[in-house]
Amino acid sequence: MKIYGDFKSGNCYKLKLACALLDIAHEWVPLDILQGDTRSDEFLALNPNGQIPVCVLDDGEVLAESNAILYYLARDSSFWPQHKLLQTRILEWQFFEQYNHEPSIAVARFIKVYQNLPQNRVVEHRAKLKAGYRALDIMERHLARHEYLVSDNCTIADISLFAYTHVAHEGGFNLSKFPAIEAWISRIQSQPGFVGMYD
Amino acid sequence: MKIYGDFKSGNCYKLKLACALLDIAHEWVPLDILQGDTRSDEFLALNPNGQIPVCVLDDGEVLAESNAILYYLARDSSFWPQHKLLQTRILEWQFFEQYNHEPSIAVARFIKVYQNLPQNRVVEHRAKLKAGYRALDIMERHLARHEYLVSDNCTIADISLFAYTHVAHEGGFNLSKFPAIEAWISRIQSQPGFVGMYD
Repeated sequence: MKIYGDFKSGNCYKLKLACALLDIAHEWVPLDILQGDTRSDEFLALNPNGQIPVCVLDDGEVLAESNAILYYLARDSSFWPQHKLLQTRILEWQFFEQYNHEPSIAVARFIKVYQNLPQNRVVEHRAKLKAGYRALDIMERHLARHEYLVSDNCTIADISLFAYTHVAHEGGFNLSKFPAIEAWISRIQSQPGFVGMYD
Repeated sequence: MKIYGDFKSGNCYKLKLACALLDIAHEWVPLDILQGDTRSDEFLALNPNGQIPVCVLDDGEVLAESNAILYYLARDSSFWPQHKLLQTRILEWQFFEQYNHEPSIAVARFIKVYQNLPQNRVVEHRAKLKAGYRALDIMERHLARHEYLVSDNCTIADISLFAYTHVAHEGGFNLSKFPAIEAWISRIQSQPGFVGMYD
């Protein structure tokens, strides 16, 4: 299995973390978004959507969408529990992540870290902070009452949400206002096999 | 089971369509977004995210996120095949829908139909059309070679993508440029039990 991705992208890091926690052998093919690697003809032939990560199975099947790939990697493990309601809760959090969380928190980080907060995106960055804080509020309320997002153990919902949450401060968010999220981040970081984004 | 939703919202219509195709008994509780129904204290107690649809099971469990609810409704049916790769493909399309398709095609429709394309959103509407056409291109290329999005039969991936695609013209999209999508729309509309958004 090959994974094409950029470690600094939270969406890609989800797979690096899942492979570490689940001990899945793979070859990582590093791509740099800022260098245009995801716009090359070669890459667009793999994923016409032009997004990373992409996972290529040994039989040549190409998988896209980070959260779908997490499902593929984890379906037969404890990170995807057997109970239908818990499975649905995982998907709820993952769709929340892609619709509400990532488009605000990841984009705020991109504007600040990769673009150095240019003048013409200051207003947009402020709007992303506001929307991101709404997403963090929802997580905080839930994690104040639960150790993990879905069950008593770490699931792929936690991997999905951890990816951009634990580097939210890089985008300008103050996580010290969210003690339950901070405790949950520590809990994820102490999982056996854990690997950091920048390791 | 109760479903809180607004038929004219594609995200809600997904569940109406799934319940019809799967013959699932339910009580529909109509809410009107434009009247502020999703901002009431009563509704926010059900879903702090303030989004519809919401599904309340008979035991009181509350489910959010349309695509997660589709999974819950269909997991034990032919709309969720047993093969792991096909399941992953369904999730790929659903995450594509929530990240690339809905935020452009549904929002373009909202601006045009519900807000009558006000001057201060004309530029945004044009950007949504551009992004939406990219999403439609990806669907068209795939459907030119496949009868349904994932397998030889209709799955919840088709329900997810059908919801906003078949009313994309209301948002200003010209679907006649996408013959494979148009043929696929007809194929969905001829499923046993099919119910339309405005029926």
